[in-house]
Amino acid sequence: MHRDRFFTLAASCPDRTGIIARVTGFIAEHNGWILESSFHADSDAHRYFMRLEIKADSLPFMLTELRERFRPIATELEMDWKISDSAVKKRVVVLVSKQEHCLYDLLARWQSKELDIEIPCVISNHDTFKGFVEWHGIPFHHVPVTAENKPQAYAEVQRLFEESHGDTMVLARYMQILSPALCAAHPGKILNIHHSFLPSFVGAKPYHQAYTRGVKLIGATCHYVTSELDQGPIIEQDVIRIDHSDSPDDMVRYGKDIEKTVLARALRYHLEDRVLAHGNKTIVFR
Amino acid sequence: MHRDRFFTLAASCPDRTGIIARVTGFIAEHNGWILESSFHADSDAHRYFMRLEIKADSLPFMLTELRERFRPIATELEMDWKISDSAVKKRVVVLVSKQEHCLYDLLARWQSKELDIEIPCVISNHDTFKGFVEWHGIPFHHVPVTAENKPQAYAEVQRLFEESHGDTMVLARYMQILSPALCAAHPGKILNIHHSFLPSFVGAKPYHQAYTRGVKLIGATCHYVTSELDQGPIIEQDVIRIDHSDSPDDMVRYGKDIEKTVLARALRYHLEDRVLAHGNKTIVFR
Amino acid sequence: MHRDRFFTLAASCPDRTGIIARVTGFIAEHNGWILESSFHADSDAHRYFMRLEIKADSLPFMLTELRERFRPIATELEMDWKISDSAVKKRVVVLVSKQEHCLYDLLARWQSKELDIEIPCVISNHDTFKGFVEWHGIPFHHVPVTAENKPQAYAEVQRLFEESHGDTMVLARYMQILSPALCAAHPGKILNIHHSFLPSFVGAKPYHQAYTRGVKLIGATCHYVTSELDQGPIIEQDVIRIDHSDSPDDMVRYGKDIEKTVLARALRYHLEDRVLAHGNKTIVFR
Amino acid sequence: MHRDRFFTLAASCPDRTGIIARVTGFIAEHNGWILESSFHADSDAHRYFMRLEIKADSLPFMLTELRERFRPIATELEMDWKISDSAVKKRVVVLVSKQEHCLYDLLARWQSKELDIEIPCVISNHDTFKGFVEWHGIPFHHVPVTAENKPQAYAEVQRLFEESHGDTMVLARYMQILSPALCAAHPGKILNIHHSFLPSFVGAKPYHQAYTRGVKLIGATCHYVTSELDQGPIIEQDVIRIDHSDSPDDMVRYGKDIEKTVLARALRYHLEDRVLAHGNKTIVFR
Repeated sequence: MHRDRFFTLAASCPDRTGIIARVTGFIAEHNGWILESSFHADSDAHRYFMRLEIKADSLPFMLTELRERFRPIATELEMDWKISDSAVKKRVVVLVSKQEHCLYDLLARWQSKELDIEIPCVISNHDTFKGFVEWHGIPFHHVPVTAENKPQAYAEVQRLFEESHGDTMVLARYMQILSPALCAAHPGKILNIHHSFLPSFVGAKPYHQAYTRGVKLIGATCHYVTSELDQGPIIEQDVIRIDHSDSPDDMVRYGKDIEKTVLARALRYHLEDRVLAHGNKTIVFR
Repeated sequence: MHRDRFFTLAASCPDRTGIIARVTGFIAEHNGWILESSFHADSDAHRYFMRLEIKADSLPFMLTELRERFRPIATELEMDWKISDSAVKKRVVVLVSKQEHCLYDLLARWQSKELDIEIPCVISNHDTFKGFVEWHGIPFHHVPVTAENKPQAYAEVQRLFEESHGDTMVLARYMQILSPALCAAHPGKILNIHHSFLPSFVGAKPYHQAYTRGVKLIGATCHYVTSELDQGPIIEQDVIRIDHSDSPDDMVRYGKDIEKTVLARALRYHLEDRVLAHGNKTIVFR
Repeated sequence: MHRDRFFTLAASCPDRTGIIARVTGFIAEHNGWILESSFHADSDAHRYFMRLEIKADSLPFMLTELRERFRPIATELEMDWKISDSAVKKRVVVLVSKQEHCLYDLLARWQSKELDIEIPCVISNHDTFKGFVEWHGIPFHHVPVTAENKPQAYAEVQRLFEESHGDTMVLARYMQILSPALCAAHPGKILNIHHSFLPSFVGAKPYHQAYTRGVKLIGATCHYVTSELDQGPIIEQDVIRIDHSDSPDDMVRYGKDIEKTVLARALRYHLEDRVLAHGNKTIVFR
Repeated sequence: MHRDRFFTLAASCPDRTGIIARVTGFIAEHNGWILESSFHADSDAHRYFMRLEIKADSLPFMLTELRERFRPIATELEMDWKISDSAVKKRVVVLVSKQEHCLYDLLARWQSKELDIEIPCVISNHDTFKGFVEWHGIPFHHVPVTAENKPQAYAEVQRLFEESHGDTMVLARYMQILSPALCAAHPGKILNIHHSFLPSFVGAKPYHQAYTRGVKLIGATCHYVTSELDQGPIIEQDVIRIDHSDSPDDMVRYGKDIEKTVLARALRYHLEDRVLAHGNKTIVFR
């Protein structure tokens, strides 16, 4: 992350010749200084992906005009695109249940500005962390989820997310399956951390599944939430070595360390517009 | 691995009090010097596992008498047990197809005595490596496998394995599925290296499956072969990081590096009697 | 970690025949149930190391008598030894400066009882985390350290540690070098997390040193504190991959993730009496 | 690696605005198809680095003309640059002593065309692998090195390298220190694999140094050879976990697995012009 203010262009378009020249030519024309740039051609999908960071004060205009001036190029290249501004903090709504590790980890990163974000609120189906969250000056919403109230509960979660102008929703070991409606309302904005190395051990109690199968490494996966359980595009994964002496409880404990790290890495990539999803896969420009 | 000759006891038995005392008391009684010892209690299976290395010349008798004298204790403790002698080289029969990486790797380790084994022969369904294997002074058997001749071909493989007094059969990227009969004839003696992080991506073309799913790490798994494809007890696994820029061909290439390393590690554990299988899981005393 | 109460024997002695038999024979004699056992012979030092967990209620006596009855064996074998009781929580005093990551991480583990310890107090040379620590119900002591007051400041730290009956002192990114007197007063009880893969990059600003040298992995090391800076026995280390695009600030950020994980792992090993130091090395029975 | 023929431009120049636009504009003007592109700004050195792969048959001219036409741009941007052709195999001269692992590994990769190179010859100070190398159809030169003949021996190595039109010299565990003259004659062309995680354990017997220091991970480092021992720019590194039970011999054995993998990865990066050295550091566009 750079200190100076910058604009980030993240885009994809059908592959053809001259794309980089067209985009960087436009920037050069206005004397824009490129801090970082990444490009990727998906030869199966015939699609081109890119991400550029441009120093804000190197340009003779600001964000709105940058967007206006870039629009014709984007149209010409048939781009999906967005430009974000490093000076505008992303707003991340965090959902938790009763496990503390991802929540403490995210708040530590937020507190030290390692994650330079706003957390407009934390939502939980339990009130376990009410005091802890509020001590940090962050509003806490207790939205219980029961077998009966699911539609209302998720409507309330969605309302809170939208009311707080959330950019991103993070399921930080939120032990509930969101409604398809909520998933569909914010595609590419909801991140989940699943406690297995997907696609192994989908669903409940993955560490117990891993124990039963006798694997020698366990993992965690951060993915975008879609309406299909644990099937969304994978952003980041990692594993840790275990052995025969580890019980399922030991695995749960080891797993927490990779869960929080994988979630934090994936969230950072996402917030810095480094993740471009295409179909069920992601391009991650690290 | 120690330079001095030693005997290795690998055993399991129902768990109870006094097992270690009984076994090590017997060794101490004869002034045996224990070089290495490992113990594990499986609290689900109520079973106890152990492995001991005893310096050969510290005992007042040799292997046959050691076995005779230990037998009553083993019987009393209802043990599955075996004692092997470091001076007797294990005999490893290697099966390959057309991929070179595991074969070169195993022969390099054998040539330098890092793997201090006999390789009585290499068997292949192709003759690609005939010259290479024979240059090393190792007999090479070409046993073609076709849709029609499978029973005869596997009978021939089994005959060659048994005729060469093989202790262990290694499928070093042997791209054929052994017959159930052959699997059943030598349980716990046949090792396969599968090119995925099992249980993900069972069966054919796992790297292509991994590519399609968009995982961020790929892996390899060495397991004992059973009659169920890719379902046997896992001995060792490892993974390597990939990203969106890697094609299936790149994954194949990366994968080769973990395949050969995982196979070599698992084979060493197996040959040193460090692997005790129980049901579909393994205890690996590293 | 087992649910049932157990006693942990951690011991070392000159190597000879019959050690395991002698120790486990004693336990078996009293019908003791061994939950976990580990042994290691250091053939250079001619020294034998062991760790055993014995189920408390399997023995016909309690801790004091266990120690009394074991003493003659320990004397006979010339052992360094101790027996601890899983029912007695270890008391861990945490020292911090202004960085939050290790502190949040330790308190998260403490809060969820993953680390089942007492934290009698947190000591810091800054008051940054006073509110956070006190919110958790833990006393916080602000002991400023200046160029002038070092002897008094460390005397005060030592007094607070001893007054709170601390078993272990953890330097959780405490950015001060303890006085030799304090180091000498509690050998094998003070753990430090150093932000490099020792022995590379001893001393100040290791990430900047790593950046300058152009290494491709950075690491963290948890070691016992001795009077020689960053030279004490290493308990645990880990690394993370970086590349040319990472600035020293990025490295600092990546490093925090391994620092807290390595510290937590090492602390757990230490608290469970899994670490036996010998000279400048450690045996870690995981 | 792509199947189709392509040209690779690897270049660096003082940083300024418009570099990418200038270079890719030139390519677009001739309808060139960019297969892969990577850019990096070193903000300390104020220098810009890039690597591009351009499909050969997308351009209306061949390599010589491409170079001619690009030259004015390179001059204008004050570039260090080169363009290579994927159809021209790189020529790699391999130096070995008595250890087999890197040699077998490289020949396996060469044999399967995973490394699509020419190996004009293997040079060794021992004749251990003469038969093995010659069986592969590769000339083998035995150049003994003694305390007395060093200048002549290295002159002979240099002569053989130059006579065989070598692009790259690989010290594949060649246990001799090259003369400063030879190092200076081919800067950025000689790769060495050092058996430690540099900068730890420079010089002789690094695994024994690691054993004595009691580290918990050991590593390997591939770097360009300069006249300062083990101080050249690092291309690639990796580590493997060990523990107290591992002897120096065990470490040597584990180390071999990372040495050969790290060397092979670094060599691939180097041969694909993915490594741009600057001062004592490298940019590696993976």
